[in-house]
Amino acid sequence: MNLLENSDILADIGEYLAEDIGRGDITTQSTVPKGVRGIGSFLAKEDLVVCGIQIAEAVFAQLDPESPAIDTSIADGDEVKAGAVFGTLSGYADILLTGERLALNLMQRMSGIATLSRLYSKAVEGTNAKIVDTRKTTPGLRMLEKYAVTVGGCKNHRFGLDDGVLIKDNHIALSGGVKEAITAAKEKVGHLHKIEIEVMNWGQLREAISAGADIVMLDNQTPEETAKLVDMARGLNPSVLLEASGGMNLDTVRDYAEAGVDLISVGRLTHSARAMDISFKIKTV
Amino acid sequence: MNLLENSDILADIGEYLAEDIGRGDITTQSTVPKGVRGIGSFLAKEDLVVCGIQIAEAVFAQLDPESPAIDTSIADGDEVKAGAVFGTLSGYADILLTGERLALNLMQRMSGIATLSRLYSKAVEGTNAKIVDTRKTTPGLRMLEKYAVTVGGCKNHRFGLDDGVLIKDNHIALSGGVKEAITAAKEKVGHLHKIEIEVMNWGQLREAISAGADIVMLDNQTPEETAKLVDMARGLNPSVLLEASGGMNLDTVRDYAEAGVDLISVGRLTHSARAMDISFKIKTV
Amino acid sequence: MNLLENSDILADIGEYLAEDIGRGDITTQSTVPKGVRGIGSFLAKEDLVVCGIQIAEAVFAQLDPESPAIDTSIADGDEVKAGAVFGTLSGYADILLTGERLALNLMQRMSGIATLSRLYSKAVEGTNAKIVDTRKTTPGLRMLEKYAVTVGGCKNHRFGLDDGVLIKDNHIALSGGVKEAITAAKEKVGHLHKIEIEVMNWGQLREAISAGADIVMLDNQTPEETAKLVDMARGLNPSVLLEASGGMNLDTVRDYAEAGVDLISVGRLTHSARAMDISFKIKTV
Amino acid sequence: MNLLENSDILADIGEYLAEDIGRGDITTQSTVPKGVRGIGSFLAKEDLVVCGIQIAEAVFAQLDPESPAIDTSIADGDEVKAGAVFGTLSGYADILLTGERLALNLMQRMSGIATLSRLYSKAVEGTNAKIVDTRKTTPGLRMLEKYAVTVGGCKNHRFGLDDGVLIKDNHIALSGGVKEAITAAKEKVGHLHKIEIEVMNWGQLREAISAGADIVMLDNQTPEETAKLVDMARGLNPSVLLEASGGMNLDTVRDYAEAGVDLISVGRLTHSARAMDISFKIKTV
Amino acid sequence: MNLLENSDILADIGEYLAEDIGRGDITTQSTVPKGVRGIGSFLAKEDLVVCGIQIAEAVFAQLDPESPAIDTSIADGDEVKAGAVFGTLSGYADILLTGERLALNLMQRMSGIATLSRLYSKAVEGTNAKIVDTRKTTPGLRMLEKYAVTVGGCKNHRFGLDDGVLIKDNHIALSGGVKEAITAAKEKVGHLHKIEIEVMNWGQLREAISAGADIVMLDNQTPEETAKLVDMARGLNPSVLLEASGGMNLDTVRDYAEAGVDLISVGRLTHSARAMDISFKIKTV
Amino acid sequence: MNLLENSDILADIGEYLAEDIGRGDITTQSTVPKGVRGIGSFLAKEDLVVCGIQIAEAVFAQLDPESPAIDTSIADGDEVKAGAVFGTLSGYADILLTGERLALNLMQRMSGIATLSRLYSKAVEGTNAKIVDTRKTTPGLRMLEKYAVTVGGCKNHRFGLDDGVLIKDNHIALSGGVKEAITAAKEKVGHLHKIEIEVMNWGQLREAISAGADIVMLDNQTPEETAKLVDMARGLNPSVLLEASGGMNLDTVRDYAEAGVDLISVGRLTHSARAMDISFKIKTV
Repeated sequence: MNLLENSDILADIGEYLAEDIGRGDITTQSTVPKGVRGIGSFLAKEDLVVCGIQIAEAVFAQLDPESPAIDTSIADGDEVKAGAVFGTLSGYADILLTGERLALNLMQRMSGIATLSRLYSKAVEGTNAKIVDTRKTTPGLRMLEKYAVTVGGCKNHRFGLDDGVLIKDNHIALSGGVKEAITAAKEKVGHLHKIEIEVMNWGQLREAISAGADIVMLDNQTPEETAKLVDMARGLNPSVLLEASGGMNLDTVRDYAEAGVDLISVGRLTHSARAMDISFKIKTV
Repeated sequence: MNLLENSDILADIGEYLAEDIGRGDITTQSTVPKGVRGIGSFLAKEDLVVCGIQIAEAVFAQLDPESPAIDTSIADGDEVKAGAVFGTLSGYADILLTGERLALNLMQRMSGIATLSRLYSKAVEGTNAKIVDTRKTTPGLRMLEKYAVTVGGCKNHRFGLDDGVLIKDNHIALSGGVKEAITAAKEKVGHLHKIEIEVMNWGQLREAISAGADIVMLDNQTPEETAKLVDMARGLNPSVLLEASGGMNLDTVRDYAEAGVDLISVGRLTHSARAMDISFKIKTV
Repeated sequence: MNLLENSDILADIGEYLAEDIGRGDITTQSTVPKGVRGIGSFLAKEDLVVCGIQIAEAVFAQLDPESPAIDTSIADGDEVKAGAVFGTLSGYADILLTGERLALNLMQRMSGIATLSRLYSKAVEGTNAKIVDTRKTTPGLRMLEKYAVTVGGCKNHRFGLDDGVLIKDNHIALSGGVKEAITAAKEKVGHLHKIEIEVMNWGQLREAISAGADIVMLDNQTPEETAKLVDMARGLNPSVLLEASGGMNLDTVRDYAEAGVDLISVGRLTHSARAMDISFKIKTV
Repeated sequence: MNLLENSDILADIGEYLAEDIGRGDITTQSTVPKGVRGIGSFLAKEDLVVCGIQIAEAVFAQLDPESPAIDTSIADGDEVKAGAVFGTLSGYADILLTGERLALNLMQRMSGIATLSRLYSKAVEGTNAKIVDTRKTTPGLRMLEKYAVTVGGCKNHRFGLDDGVLIKDNHIALSGGVKEAITAAKEKVGHLHKIEIEVMNWGQLREAISAGADIVMLDNQTPEETAKLVDMARGLNPSVLLEASGGMNLDTVRDYAEAGVDLISVGRLTHSARAMDISFKIKTV
Repeated sequence: MNLLENSDILADIGEYLAEDIGRGDITTQSTVPKGVRGIGSFLAKEDLVVCGIQIAEAVFAQLDPESPAIDTSIADGDEVKAGAVFGTLSGYADILLTGERLALNLMQRMSGIATLSRLYSKAVEGTNAKIVDTRKTTPGLRMLEKYAVTVGGCKNHRFGLDDGVLIKDNHIALSGGVKEAITAAKEKVGHLHKIEIEVMNWGQLREAISAGADIVMLDNQTPEETAKLVDMARGLNPSVLLEASGGMNLDTVRDYAEAGVDLISVGRLTHSARAMDISFKIKTV
Repeated sequence: MNLLENSDILADIGEYLAEDIGRGDITTQSTVPKGVRGIGSFLAKEDLVVCGIQIAEAVFAQLDPESPAIDTSIADGDEVKAGAVFGTLSGYADILLTGERLALNLMQRMSGIATLSRLYSKAVEGTNAKIVDTRKTTPGLRMLEKYAVTVGGCKNHRFGLDDGVLIKDNHIALSGGVKEAITAAKEKVGHLHKIEIEVMNWGQLREAISAGADIVMLDNQTPEETAKLVDMARGLNPSVLLEASGGMNLDTVRDYAEAGVDLISVGRLTHSARAMDISFKIKTV
């Protein structure tokens, strides 16, 4: 995923700059002489997985298309230690000052998600399970946050309600049952879409598999229950995909992976990742 | 601040819905019959300060201007216990299902910020200090997040770079010094703006006050150093406002308040608040 | 698919009105008195499948939110004979005149596609094959045109490049081969997506099925060749979906359906449907 | 008309790309290596008048501003034979694949209109009549379609309701009569606009000319009736322009031209032109 | 021209409100209690022609769709004396305060243009000449300003460069001469457009008429020269329209009218009209 | 203030061009050959302060990003005499013709404001008073007009209702009094904002100062009354800022300045400045 090929993201950055700058950066405009060149660098103040370098560069490029250029040997996905300097830019000092906060706000959040995703992906290393994200993203930032998840080594679940069928408890109740919901979805959605359904127990799981579900999400089960359900499900249809979901954390996620599921969805990758502590240092030249 | 009077926020909600729904909610459209009415309610799964009820209502109203109406005795700012049900809506079941995730994504984040802000505002109760937020907000969500800060009982620092003068270390260096920066800002910005400057030590603080700074931010000091600087500053100019900043947390914030500052700025109110655990329950009627 | 729930379509109608009206309908404004009420009706001048009634209503509603109301016993999908009157509106005469051309331009095209799709869907009646559309739609009108396809009784293939994997000859060549392309796609796209691949011959078809393709498109085969390939494919994997494609027309489409494929894609449903002959009659009241 | 000077068209292309690509071309992104260069060429699969080369180039340029360049000796308006290759581009293979469908959708439609317009313009060669288009264009594509009409050798009637006065039967009825409508229009529209009116018979034609109409449209007459009306009208005012309209086709259009009218309007130039069969061939380099 | 039917104007008002209100009316929000009702009225502080009542109403309606309603017996075009009160609104006091400045900024400018236009239209009363405006309008406000011109009793020249042909000295020079320019324009522009050309002297005027110009603008002539040119031109073609232009003012305009021209264009109607002195009085209820 | 750094202004210029050009400059397109180069220059037809050179350049650059370049030794703020030529551009002749009117409309208005502001700033030279503008600007053009004010040597008052607190008579009445309004504002607005209040008499002035107003506006006083109020106010608080307002003109403004106020606000700088007489001359090369 090359985010900068997506013109929406450049438009979004323009809106974020407008949100922060409004009618102008009155402090910088009144105190900093025009034409002074500077060098800006990001400084990691804790160990982290870097994410958002291209985005930070795009922030400064919108303020001044010609000058700033990031010269870095560190790329998205690299792990850096506290104290590491990365992403050095050369540009006009006033541009660096005006764009600093937005560049940091984006990079700190994206690096936070990438760093947390790295922990989760490592936690299940060696198993067959993949960690996937959810739609519990920050409104407006879904593309950037889902990108950060992949930089951290996890996978993306669907990008929106049009991007995949996931039948949940309310859909089941409103359509008349597990079988009815699956049948209706198979009839109406395009032939390129698989059908995923969330189940609560073995009865629903069995009904889902026999109705032809491609993927079944086992919601809110213990690892032990999950292991049992996985065994029974594989007995019915070895190729059905199984996903565990519900209240996952770093302490429990490996148990679920070892229970044999294919996918584990983790909402907190995006809804509660802490911003990494990164600062931006400017020197004049 | 009545957020719903701000037409930008309604436009933003439209964009967030587009981000999540794309070409359509294929699961709901294929499994849920049209015309079925439902009742949806938010359920607090932990103790929290509610924030975002109007915004959640606006999400559903954009999907169906006529039906959903939130009937609630709980308003933004109320503290609820785990298990509390609030914000009950009546509407078409398919609309409730399609809007659920965005309504939750917004309310969980806003309630997270309000809940954390409440803790900070209580931590300094009885002192003269007010907790203020920063510009370390999520890009695109600044208005909503700063609103959540006030719902939690804290105050807002500037809304953007055009909304106030805050001279930082780089501005000082580039303009030639504390006095030069303050003089330049006074000369160039409008007469309605006060001048705030960030200082590192007593020398800079003294120079700032004598150059006529209206507010001085004491950055990265211990509570003890802060208390000393406050005393000395008040000796020079009793009416200067003093702000403490840098790495505040719930353990240390009261010490700074008791050191006598007027304002304490806390970045983590917005940059690292955890999403509150809230779910949305739908029943057909 | 309820098109009027999609706010993009209302925005598009606003742009189409701007395209046609520009600074104002100078003829109507200068010759028609304000305040005169009229009745407008659509008149079919040939046999056709009606499509676009809601859209036509939305055109007039944008010009005058209060007055026009379509009172009709005929709905999208109904077949009408030459001479039939349908979609009667009551509104201000000047509004009816100003909106007439856009309402007709949309309804004539949509009815053209629905009418042609009806012919194709009837042509394969009684077989297991479904007719599907393609991405060969008019730029900007894809949602309306794909809706018209379903009104005519056919099905929609993917809505865009993000809505499904369809590996074509160039993808195969650039990725190194049929197997390599399928493997790469399975590895990288989300678990909710099936994999479709276009093949030219039995060798590719066999390789595709053994690499795990969910759907195989048989491109540019005769009906006889198609029947043979279907038989051989079903022998390898009875559940693989098979799609015929390439130069379909009303004379040949049933032969392909009887060859046993599940899907037949027909580009001309949208790229070359003729506009139906419909006029709009206005009477004053 | 240089279409690329019109910034609206570039914005429209951006919207068309968004419609087709959505969140990304998942097939190409997962199967085609980044950085591979390719050569793409359009291939005419039937005889046609080329139209849309600049537009196709603009499609690829929006996806990658730097690489693709069309190197062609064939320009809009040239007639090519089945088998001809034209519009060769050099660019990244993934960009060529992602933009291919939109470039073709535009060029096939525009070439279809240009090819049909060429037939009509040739059909009246040697007479004084010019073929003109109508407002029966595809919503959103009027500028491109009217451009294609001129590429085919015909002329444009008005671009929108603000671009010229054309009084039709409903306007006449609502304003009180032919004379009243012409008088009202002359009074109210700007002095730079001519007045055109549609008439049904000799009585209306005579009244229109004596009321000072600049152009009279003879609607739904046979060629013989048209010839008579033209003679009588010229007798009253030799400089009045006369336009024939209503159900024109390639078999009848020359008869109308020879009846002596100045203009013949043909709706099917735009509302029912068939898409030309053009494909796009990509080779890696 | 009903301006409120033009959705662009409502969108423009939204942008003007954003320009003035930004993140919120901090004075009113902090000092005025919510829910207090008020009555606002416009007060003419000099004699003027009222213009912009609908627009002012639309300003308040955007801030609060439900409350304010203008109850007025005075309409656009009415002449009021200093001291007159008009356009009374009832609404929330805070809304009235927040919208006041924009409503006044629009109404004062529009009334200024209407008042000046009234003086010009009266100055030529009884002659055959009509006063017309120019394209020397305020960028962004052309529709509103041209509307105000008509409210004052004058006529509109073309609304934009696409709305009429007006060949000026540079066009003449670049096309090779008066005759060449007229011939080229007649060949290329649509048959609904008349051809206007600006000339400097009798030689150009004669050439223009013989080349078939529909309208000739006599630029920068004295009234006496104008009268002579008018006579000579009418001798050549009695139906050619003649327009005087260049430095018109209230002292000279009648002389030009009496010289026999059909049209007199006056740039200062829009480019230099003074804002009328109007204030807005609010009372609570 | 570097206006061209503000992307909104470039977007506005795009909208202004669309307003003027619409579907195309039909005169230039039909009469001027493509590819002819020209030289365009602005010509001052009266003495004036130049303002808007960068903006004019941006107008032409939007029509043709590559060619036109203004080569000028005259910059915004320079005073030129009638007859002076400035702002010479080299570009395609058709581009110069199409952009001419908008470039002039902007430059004539901006130069009008700058020229008038220069007169006001000179009128108070040698006093301590600064002339400031108001919010009585043209809707949509506030940034450009406030820039022109500074080019003329005056200062800007607040840019919008969010940019400063200015409590007026209605706010005072609705909040309960001078003291109550000031107290409410101090409590609710951010700590970076000063509080300005408008008063009518000594009683209000005294109350305002004792309630802690930072700035007091003395509205509609004679110069003599103003001098008395200034003296009394300085006696209470030497550092309060005092602003005179209400019906200022070039004859009276110095009397107010000599009365000792710090600021004098003059609405007519922006609401009634006359457009300067500037023309644009094009020569081919």
